[in-house]
Amino acid sequence: MANELPGMTLKAIGVVRSEIKQPSMPDGKDVVSDIVVDVNLTEALDNLDEFSHIIVLYWMHQRAATGQPPTKVRPMGKQKLPLVGVFATRSPDRPNPVGKATVRLLQRQGNTLKVKGLDAIDGTPVIDIKPYLPGYDSVTDAKVPQWVTKR
Amino acid sequence: MANELPGMTLKAIGVVRSEIKQPSMPDGKDVVSDIVVDVNLTEALDNLDEFSHIIVLYWMHQRAATGQPPTKVRPMGKQKLPLVGVFATRSPDRPNPVGKATVRLLQRQGNTLKVKGLDAIDGTPVIDIKPYLPGYDSVTDAKVPQWVTKR
Repeated sequence: MANELPGMTLKAIGVVRSEIKQPSMPDGKDVVSDIVVDVNLTEALDNLDEFSHIIVLYWMHQRAATGQPPTKVRPMGKQKLPLVGVFATRSPDRPNPVGKATVRLLQRQGNTLKVKGLDAIDGTPVIDIKPYLPGYDSVTDAKVPQWVTKR
Repeated sequence: MANELPGMTLKAIGVVRSEIKQPSMPDGKDVVSDIVVDVNLTEALDNLDEFSHIIVLYWMHQRAATGQPPTKVRPMGKQKLPLVGVFATRSPDRPNPVGKATVRLLQRQGNTLKVKGLDAIDGTPVIDIKPYLPGYDSVTDAKVPQWVTKR
């Protein structure tokens, strides 16, 4: 089936520069980081700063090397939480280690974006940047199971 | 810089089955589609149906073959809109043709997810599925430029 399709290879379009040097639980709501974009793509960032928030897709490279990912994990590594399917979590140990964060865009200067709330470690390859579109990207009536809010 | 990192290769974890056969403008809020996940990953879907909404990352394969993407595009192909940086749009003609949709999960049956609102064409490779987390994935005070809402 789908796996017979030709390879899908990503190019890094930039890199995260952050004070976060080690993977940690998603908790980085106040962290300010830079995204340094490939200088050849500087023009592709034009108009992005007309948006207050952006979506960043990135490659969780430290997890990408650990071999076959598990199909079940404990959310946020918490032993008291039930073992659940990995697609029901945001665990980086997933078949394609692509992370997705919605962050506030503080400033764009040339090929550098200053953002707030990006929970990706220093050196993380960035694969895409998209504008956050209220309505398209947000849901007003979303429901989550109880174990998500149990901390 | 980032481009010197080793190749980042995606595996399709599933495929979209939809009545949408041709790329179109994002307009598919009411379309019901199936995501047929690799049968070896069936267990990884456990617990996903405890969430009302999911995030789907997919490979816009029809655009992936068209060579060097432009750095500037007209949003939604509309000639009356200004030429803007491609990262300020959701155009599929981007350096890495990865699409992101937030959709309602109607049903999970084995390795098949029935979803509402996925604007991806039939045969689209799916690369990741994540639970939608209000607060983490949503923004209450997001601002967008006027050209986004001008239709």
